[in-house]
Amino acid sequence: MNEQLQQVARIGDLLRERGWTMGTAESCTGGMVGHLITELSGSSDFFLGGIIAYANEIKRDALGVPEELLIAHGAVSEPVALAMAQGVRRVLNVDVGVSVTGIAGPTGGTDQKPVGTVYIAASSPAGDAVRHYVWDRDRAGNKRLSAQAALDLVEVLLAGSLASEGGV
Amino acid sequence: MNEQLQQVARIGDLLRERGWTMGTAESCTGGMVGHLITELSGSSDFFLGGIIAYANEIKRDALGVPEELLIAHGAVSEPVALAMAQGVRRVLNVDVGVSVTGIAGPTGGTDQKPVGTVYIAASSPAGDAVRHYVWDRDRAGNKRLSAQAALDLVEVLLAGSLASEGGV
Repeated sequence: MNEQLQQVARIGDLLRERGWTMGTAESCTGGMVGHLITELSGSSDFFLGGIIAYANEIKRDALGVPEELLIAHGAVSEPVALAMAQGVRRVLNVDVGVSVTGIAGPTGGTDQKPVGTVYIAASSPAGDAVRHYVWDRDRAGNKRLSAQAALDLVEVLLAGSLASEGGV
Repeated sequence: MNEQLQQVARIGDLLRERGWTMGTAESCTGGMVGHLITELSGSSDFFLGGIIAYANEIKRDALGVPEELLIAHGAVSEPVALAMAQGVRRVLNVDVGVSVTGIAGPTGGTDQKPVGTVYIAASSPAGDAVRHYVWDRDRAGNKRLSAQAALDLVEVLLAGSLASEGGV
């Protein structure tokens, strides 16, 4: 089992200990996080599904991201990443949501938000977390690093939430 | 550009000629079809998003697949694949929907539906199409072949629909 599959297996164990399910809300990774999770046999125990919200209309209509947030902060922003992670929990009725929104490139960058900018959020009953990165790879590399960072954030959030309650 | 990216580019051209958008409805591929489409820079022109419907509740609640179909035929069936492809068109307001539902393995197979069984459907204003395969690979290989077959079906459906109307 490669390292990434081992990580997904650890995430699965952390979720199973809690009786929690999870779902994904992906923009720039386009479904890659869900793809990586479902490489693990048995992932259907805890992974129920996700929303690939590539267009802003999908972020708004399918994930319930408020239009005002999209206008005020842009789709690639901390508030929108959080709203996506919280939105997928509500819409798909899962316990843990993880989201990715960013600019994979090679086009779409600006001075404030260069190519490679990505926001990743996770939301769970134990709390929320957001991370901000600026990757320096090509499109495929930026997507891959973003998907990996999403798995990392879920694992840290779940492991931390267990520790803060005294572990099991 | 590798062959798969070239194919996505051809699909994008076929969609752009029509002014059509597309979305995905994935079960066993878990988001891989969306991931492959979004490897192409510029895919946001035509790819709006998708629903990863791994659990049956998501197929029913997020894609509107009738519960009766799931009970009568099972999630891995031609009617459910069609309902998923039609459902994503309606739910995400896209012109073309493509769906994948199958048993990637190594568990979950039955005598009637062995591991590797997959149904792939595409739905567009020009008509619908369904394909049935039984792959003989491992989990990762069955997912990969299914995602490739989904891209193939979209391309054939779009190219065929242009031809049947005399081309452009």
